[in-house]
Amino acid sequence: MEVREYGERSRRAAARMACLATEEKNRALLAAAESLSAHTAEILSANRQDMEAGRESGLSEGLLDRLKLTEERIQGMEKGLRDLAALPDPVGEVISDRTLPNGLRITKRRVPLGVIGIIYEARPNVTSDAFGICFKAGNAVILRGGSSAIRSNTAVTEALREGLSAEKLPPDAVQLIADTSHESAQALMHLNGLVDVLIPRGSAGLIQTVLRESSVPVIETGAGNCHIYVDESADPEMAVRIILNAKTQRIGVCNAAESLVVHRNIEGVLLPELKKTLDQHHVEVRADDAARALVPGWKEATEEDWGTEYLDYILSLKTVDSVDEAIRHINRYHTQHSDAIITENEENAEKFLREVDSACVYVNASTRFTDGGEFGLGAEIGISTQKLHARGPMGLRELTTYKYEIRGNGQVRP
Amino acid sequence: MEVREYGERSRRAAARMACLATEEKNRALLAAAESLSAHTAEILSANRQDMEAGRESGLSEGLLDRLKLTEERIQGMEKGLRDLAALPDPVGEVISDRTLPNGLRITKRRVPLGVIGIIYEARPNVTSDAFGICFKAGNAVILRGGSSAIRSNTAVTEALREGLSAEKLPPDAVQLIADTSHESAQALMHLNGLVDVLIPRGSAGLIQTVLRESSVPVIETGAGNCHIYVDESADPEMAVRIILNAKTQRIGVCNAAESLVVHRNIEGVLLPELKKTLDQHHVEVRADDAARALVPGWKEATEEDWGTEYLDYILSLKTVDSVDEAIRHINRYHTQHSDAIITENEENAEKFLREVDSACVYVNASTRFTDGGEFGLGAEIGISTQKLHARGPMGLRELTTYKYEIRGNGQVRP
Repeated sequence: MEVREYGERSRRAAARMACLATEEKNRALLAAAESLSAHTAEILSANRQDMEAGRESGLSEGLLDRLKLTEERIQGMEKGLRDLAALPDPVGEVISDRTLPNGLRITKRRVPLGVIGIIYEARPNVTSDAFGICFKAGNAVILRGGSSAIRSNTAVTEALREGLSAEKLPPDAVQLIADTSHESAQALMHLNGLVDVLIPRGSAGLIQTVLRESSVPVIETGAGNCHIYVDESADPEMAVRIILNAKTQRIGVCNAAESLVVHRNIEGVLLPELKKTLDQHHVEVRADDAARALVPGWKEATEEDWGTEYLDYILSLKTVDSVDEAIRHINRYHTQHSDAIITENEENAEKFLREVDSACVYVNASTRFTDGGEFGLGAEIGISTQKLHARGPMGLRELTTYKYEIRGNGQVRP
Repeated sequence: MEVREYGERSRRAAARMACLATEEKNRALLAAAESLSAHTAEILSANRQDMEAGRESGLSEGLLDRLKLTEERIQGMEKGLRDLAALPDPVGEVISDRTLPNGLRITKRRVPLGVIGIIYEARPNVTSDAFGICFKAGNAVILRGGSSAIRSNTAVTEALREGLSAEKLPPDAVQLIADTSHESAQALMHLNGLVDVLIPRGSAGLIQTVLRESSVPVIETGAGNCHIYVDESADPEMAVRIILNAKTQRIGVCNAAESLVVHRNIEGVLLPELKKTLDQHHVEVRADDAARALVPGWKEATEEDWGTEYLDYILSLKTVDSVDEAIRHINRYHTQHSDAIITENEENAEKFLREVDSACVYVNASTRFTDGGEFGLGAEIGISTQKLHARGPMGLRELTTYKYEIRGNGQVRP
């Protein structure tokens, strides 16, 4: 099937979906979860074939782990769908409602975005998770997964579609593009008029390619070169505790800290203690000369380190003379995701909050809290690092738009 | 100067601007208006040179009219800036504020977008208007105007910058790219990390080019193939009145009606009356066979007519058998801008409001009301026809984003 044909089917499904009651959507999510459960054996069998092909073609252990499905992981997907059924529905919400002097009543109402395209890589759980959150917000979704997971993704999608059909809802509310070639991704990126937004999920390389090449609007997610600035006035014990948490609590995630910025006047107290703790956790530090003069044994940081998201047991460390220099450094090298200041100085805290240009700016807390669940959104499709439409964790509401309904009784413009 | 250098200067100016108080921005807007007034002679002289060069190079009368500045038009630009100074400032608004059980306080606050790029064509008033609204919302703006208006745009920009400097604000809050080549527009479209959003203003061709080629996020504005559906139950007199207003009150604007959709059962009553009125106003109708059987003399519509935004005294007319068929036709050919139903049937009105996928959907009123001023936004940078970020008329608030400020006292993620 041509990619355009997927788009047209999704567009028709989206038109149906925009009119569904919350209760209908919730029943469909439960039916989809039920169907995943009923088809667990087929899904696992398809996944085994993907794993075997992956091993033969030399996929890394990390990628194989992401690709792997287990009964437990499928149950996790089912739970995700059931949890979504229990969340409030953002669609239909009246954002504003007023009547002009000429009698026109203008109601601004939340509606689904329409058709959402997801381009992703090896994780077959994205197939179910992305469907669920898009569907609950009233959208149809077109999935274009990677070739290494095609059998797993196909089996999951078939199960989801069967669940929708059982509830007499259009199965085309979720479609997986069978063709995993470069050309099919390209075609999806140019379905303007059929696809309302694309959300790439995966490596920085994938996301940059979609941003560069798509003419369909894109939401950029995921890259996190998160900084922690330790101010002159910081509590050193708190600083070490937060740095350790932000770096090592989970290593491969976008809200993990990658870069430290430290005020020169606290380095004498902070760095020896920090080194001891980080050494215990096998964290490599790449520091500038000022820090290395105090802590022998740390590697030298290069310009490239300041802009690198390691996703590994590595931290860069830059020494500064003021909170202003820290802010300039951060605004130059960060990815506008999450940055934190550790300080006991309220003025510096407020300055940092105001001037650091990130989705989430923290005072005296770990950057690891940037998360839809932690923020109380209930579910999350990703963390936006752009400023248009949505910033930071994106939940159900961020997968909607609005329309103006204008009711008159014959008004014309004078 | 390289386009990247403009971007870096704008980024620095934007960092300053994010911290300005409302009062400072308002004073700067008034100073900029003052400066336009003081430099009227230079601006008019630069404009005369543009006009002369335009005549020599054979610009059409329409383009020359758009290019032309007069004392009155400059006063209009000044008034625009003064009006903006009087509007409420959206920046700083607290959108939500709550404290989690772990003590983290999460404040979602409205902040400027940052750097906004505007690519536009012949109208030099856009230079001042776009600067004003972007500036009031706390943004720096990079302007890339057309070559035919370069002298006028330069003179206006210089005057605006002088006004900012007089108030000790960064003049780089407004910059005009001196190079009007294709390459400079291309470079601007790829300044990711320096430019946060691009808003093209001008012809459909310009907008499509920017949408297709930009890797910086774009807001699509302006194309309006607006439909009016006359339901079986409509009041024919009201229908004629609204159609006449929506088509002819102003002909070259995006919220003018371009396409009629008429229920077969009302054509006998409606069409003769409609023809009489439209003939009086020299409106050409291109209709399908059903309508032409009733009204001899109307031209035959082709498939191409359904999708055409004429911006002229022309209307297409499609006959349908139901409100459902009307909605399908509209959703297929419209530009998601503004569409109206004329009906006395409340059920059909609600169905139309729900199912037509446009920024503004009207019942018994003219599409010409889709406008920032009419909607009470105070000022408008354009009418978005996409769903991401902003839909319909975009005012000050639509030129902002938000950030999360998170205040803790040492919290780490368990």
